[in-house]
Amino acid sequence: MAPHRRTSSSPMASYDEFLSFAHELADLARTAIQPLFRSREAIEVKSGKGSRLQLVTKADRAAEARMRDAIGRRFPHHGVVGEEYGSENTDAEHTWILDPIDGTKAFVAGLPVFGTLVGLLERGHPTIGVIDQAITGERMWGAPQGAWLNGELVTTSRPADPERMIVAMTEPGMIRSAAARAAFQRLADEALFVRYGTDCWGYAMLAAGYIDVVVESDIKPWDVLPGMAIISAAGGIASAWDGCQPGSNGTVLAAGDPDLHAALVDRFPDTDD
Amino acid sequence: MAPHRRTSSSPMASYDEFLSFAHELADLARTAIQPLFRSREAIEVKSGKGSRLQLVTKADRAAEARMRDAIGRRFPHHGVVGEEYGSENTDAEHTWILDPIDGTKAFVAGLPVFGTLVGLLERGHPTIGVIDQAITGERMWGAPQGAWLNGELVTTSRPADPERMIVAMTEPGMIRSAAARAAFQRLADEALFVRYGTDCWGYAMLAAGYIDVVVESDIKPWDVLPGMAIISAAGGIASAWDGCQPGSNGTVLAAGDPDLHAALVDRFPDTDD
Repeated sequence: MAPHRRTSSSPMASYDEFLSFAHELADLARTAIQPLFRSREAIEVKSGKGSRLQLVTKADRAAEARMRDAIGRRFPHHGVVGEEYGSENTDAEHTWILDPIDGTKAFVAGLPVFGTLVGLLERGHPTIGVIDQAITGERMWGAPQGAWLNGELVTTSRPADPERMIVAMTEPGMIRSAAARAAFQRLADEALFVRYGTDCWGYAMLAAGYIDVVVESDIKPWDVLPGMAIISAAGGIASAWDGCQPGSNGTVLAAGDPDLHAALVDRFPDTDD
Repeated sequence: MAPHRRTSSSPMASYDEFLSFAHELADLARTAIQPLFRSREAIEVKSGKGSRLQLVTKADRAAEARMRDAIGRRFPHHGVVGEEYGSENTDAEHTWILDPIDGTKAFVAGLPVFGTLVGLLERGHPTIGVIDQAITGERMWGAPQGAWLNGELVTTSRPADPERMIVAMTEPGMIRSAAARAAFQRLADEALFVRYGTDCWGYAMLAAGYIDVVVESDIKPWDVLPGMAIISAAGGIASAWDGCQPGSNGTVLAAGDPDLHAALVDRFPDTDD
């Protein structure tokens, strides 16, 4: 066998390998988080206040440390971006993006609706994503092959009519500008309802076809890029309010139906400034 | 044995029997709900719009019907109040109060953060409560003997200092009056954070000591009285904003620490009109 054949796996085989490794990372985070849930451990305020408060716990740090360590051993040339320990080698072709606990407020409040997010960026574009719930064991993942909820292949859906739209948002106070608040209120008034407190599970349930639209602001790249990979794999679109890849200006507009996404992008301002 | 001895069990024995039966009711609801979660069944709008929208699904009706049927067979002289099928025999000494799915919006959005609520009122006063999550299997309960989360005895807590308060609320839009919105905003500004989208799990996590304050409006008796029984059993207080038993005017203010509850009752208007 010629030497070059040994490493020339097909793109699909690579995705299989990377997806399998993403599951391993989520497993590692799960075992780090489980013993610390409802343990009344100390909570540290990183920055901000109110809707923009950023918290960190021992569980966030332990879960990210384990995942970074595993990446360093398995793919030492890959980049890593994590919420708690910063960025390394981000000009690599492949970069892992990690949020050990998305929804730290839920974690601290004893509610098992937070999630561990693992994403793989290929030249900056999210191609693989995993959202894992360490306590309930629910897991959502996506790759170019498709999107799965607890092992079942899923796709996004479109609302039967606009008045049946189901919208999700984590915290209303995250939207800052008057123009964006007005655009969101119009959407809320048209929808069947808005569900709050969703964090990463808003993206997951949009990808699985139970939620039609997610709107967020004050979002970091690690909050949204893993979910974006899953949403894309399931047939939906997640962008910033200006239609570009989310993560740069903090805004997110995701829809299961591409036509609905296009119509809503036109309604929101480009930024939340 | 004299005939009157046959029925004169001690009050504690009665509570044991009633608590055991409340668990049976929650088990029945769980088996009715499980096959219908994420089944894309039809959603019916009962009333309202936006934050005040009331939905009903086949799962709500199936779970309540099973519980009412069991009560009728076991305690035919007890009263029953349920969200979906109304009130019967409510002048009985004992009345069961049932909300088959609290958090129907979460149920419809595919999020396992709704709950089945079972309460027992003794001459109108809530003495036993169960909050059950049919999908994750989490269960919180309370009775005069104490309060338990997944079988572990729990109590409420008090925040280390006021800036560390954790507040929960289901939907900000439920608060209608300007005076109440201002009182809530002041509380939110003082707190460590507000967690949204909590429904009955706000009461449960308050009883277990992870949340300090819950504020709600537009609440029906079946939404809050089972949780009130659990909160009382765990050492906290749940009242309407006027300090009276909740359920009459739609408002709820619950705190794990009775002193904190007293201080906050003074700040909120008596009603949300």
